[in-house]
Amino acid sequence: MTAAIKRNVAPEILRTFAADLLTAGGFTAEQARQTSGLLVWANLRGAESHGVLRIPRYIEMVKLGIINSDAKPAFKTEMGAIAVLDADRAPGAVGMLLAAEKAIKLAGSHGIGWCSARNITHAGAIGYFAQKVAEAGMIGMVMTASKPLMIYFGSSAEGVSTNPLAIAAPTADPDRPIVFDMSTSAAALGKIMAARDAGVAIPEGWGVDASGAGTTDPKAVKSMLPMAGPKGAGLSLMIEIMSSVLIANPIISASLNGTDGAAFNGLVLAVDPVAFGDKAAFRQAVEELAQAIKGLPAAAEHEPVLLPGERGFAEAAKRTQEGIPIASGTLANLVAVATKYSVPIPPSLR
Amino acid sequence: MTAAIKRNVAPEILRTFAADLLTAGGFTAEQARQTSGLLVWANLRGAESHGVLRIPRYIEMVKLGIINSDAKPAFKTEMGAIAVLDADRAPGAVGMLLAAEKAIKLAGSHGIGWCSARNITHAGAIGYFAQKVAEAGMIGMVMTASKPLMIYFGSSAEGVSTNPLAIAAPTADPDRPIVFDMSTSAAALGKIMAARDAGVAIPEGWGVDASGAGTTDPKAVKSMLPMAGPKGAGLSLMIEIMSSVLIANPIISASLNGTDGAAFNGLVLAVDPVAFGDKAAFRQAVEELAQAIKGLPAAAEHEPVLLPGERGFAEAAKRTQEGIPIASGTLANLVAVATKYSVPIPPSLR
Repeated sequence: MTAAIKRNVAPEILRTFAADLLTAGGFTAEQARQTSGLLVWANLRGAESHGVLRIPRYIEMVKLGIINSDAKPAFKTEMGAIAVLDADRAPGAVGMLLAAEKAIKLAGSHGIGWCSARNITHAGAIGYFAQKVAEAGMIGMVMTASKPLMIYFGSSAEGVSTNPLAIAAPTADPDRPIVFDMSTSAAALGKIMAARDAGVAIPEGWGVDASGAGTTDPKAVKSMLPMAGPKGAGLSLMIEIMSSVLIANPIISASLNGTDGAAFNGLVLAVDPVAFGDKAAFRQAVEELAQAIKGLPAAAEHEPVLLPGERGFAEAAKRTQEGIPIASGTLANLVAVATKYSVPIPPSLR
Repeated sequence: MTAAIKRNVAPEILRTFAADLLTAGGFTAEQARQTSGLLVWANLRGAESHGVLRIPRYIEMVKLGIINSDAKPAFKTEMGAIAVLDADRAPGAVGMLLAAEKAIKLAGSHGIGWCSARNITHAGAIGYFAQKVAEAGMIGMVMTASKPLMIYFGSSAEGVSTNPLAIAAPTADPDRPIVFDMSTSAAALGKIMAARDAGVAIPEGWGVDASGAGTTDPKAVKSMLPMAGPKGAGLSLMIEIMSSVLIANPIISASLNGTDGAAFNGLVLAVDPVAFGDKAAFRQAVEELAQAIKGLPAAAEHEPVLLPGERGFAEAAKRTQEGIPIASGTLANLVAVATKYSVPIPPSLR
């Protein structure tokens, strides 16, 4: 194979290859299937930074015992409309999918359902889990919490994570929910890495250098800055309280105090429109809102007004037709894993 | 009285005066009591724009029939952990306090409780309602939705409101919960109005002029811009879906399509730590997180690292001691209302 050429690969082939690599690297078949589903969803939508490029590190994490391939996720607490899952450090997709299923089930019985998931591992693009809830006809809200890696507003130090928040709702088109997915940082780490690779400057407000001063040099970025200053920092802190502190599994305070704590926690809230009225009428009303927004005058010619997640769906439609482009560096890393574990490389990636 | 001099007034006196004015203007005694509690809470915390300066307009809204002083708020839907209140256009504080009480009650039985409130009126500083939930020992999440007044990202037109989100959690100190409260706009309208009054420029990114171009002239601002571009616009849209579309009371689509819709909806989500474990341990764990954040190195000398809502509590402590300063313009407006309705003016405001 030629590592310097970007290859296009059909989603199904990439999904199978990804699952084969993960299985060879220690995941169970089911863990690999769920994880490759999440990763290729991100690749399809143009979010390469949350896609199959993660595979070598995920396999390394199994070897290091950070991801537990023998995980036995179990519900530890169930009361009314809430549940707490201990994911036992299963791959992130496994724990968060279990939490989403549980929240959907609880919402079916109680109108809303909240499932906390403790001891998950890296959850990737959490819009995926919110979309699963929307595909069940409900509103889904998903958050995850992790270790300090973002400047806390008013401090010169990393005090919070870039904790993301995703909210999804079904529309009249079952294949096109609205999927809002944001991190609480000013910019995604992937954008800073992309600027580094491209050798271009980043806007002010994205990151600080080792001295704590703001920088536009992506190579100098030591810490991320929060979205909208106190808003991003504060929201991230509240996500830590809801995801981690509520279930007595703190990440931030443990980390700042130098003691061992959890690495990742998450939660899924599902809201069932059926409890509030008519399911079809709700979908139709979301659709009317979507169309009203789409009908707003565009700020720039030839740039349509987009709903949250719409760019991702458009990209996924394109990539389903044309294949998913895999960057040469990513391909080389995947091929190295395949070679190491004697996993057959699909012809389109050879 | 001399309108040009700023007066300091004791909170209790201002609360009584505010309630007397509202009662004279058509509120029932109980509506006036709840509304003055909300307004003076904002004044205490330094959020003048959400304080007693609203009173003349609130009275006008009663006269115009926008606020219904005969409102009979009633729960229309109750199922499992959810409820829907029709606030019947009661004053905002009345509807949202009922929703908060209901969410707290539901959370006590089901672990979480969600109360939607339809047909509320202007809800003011929604951190107040989130704080009420935290004072009950729970995590509170509050959102409200209103008419388009902010540019939708990617459009040149107002497509969403500045829909706020507040989240509060109890700490070890019952009088000092963490109270996160943000709008989805880049800056509060009050800050733009303050810059206008002070004759100073505003930063780029806060607003656009009548032609749709960004402006730093506060007097030229025609429309607000969203926080962090697509993030603020998208989050505001999802708040409309959760607050309005879910209960078949859409604001944005109705407004953009030129039909009559609701003016304001809101919702309160309460999460009871007791369902997840031990209440005291939760408060203590939030306190540990708070202290860890407070212990971060400050970015600037003599500027302590602050928790969400902490500046407001500090200001409230100060103003409880020294009195609440009332700007001369606000005082003149309140005195005019008092004179019109023969409401006695407290000596400290004469």
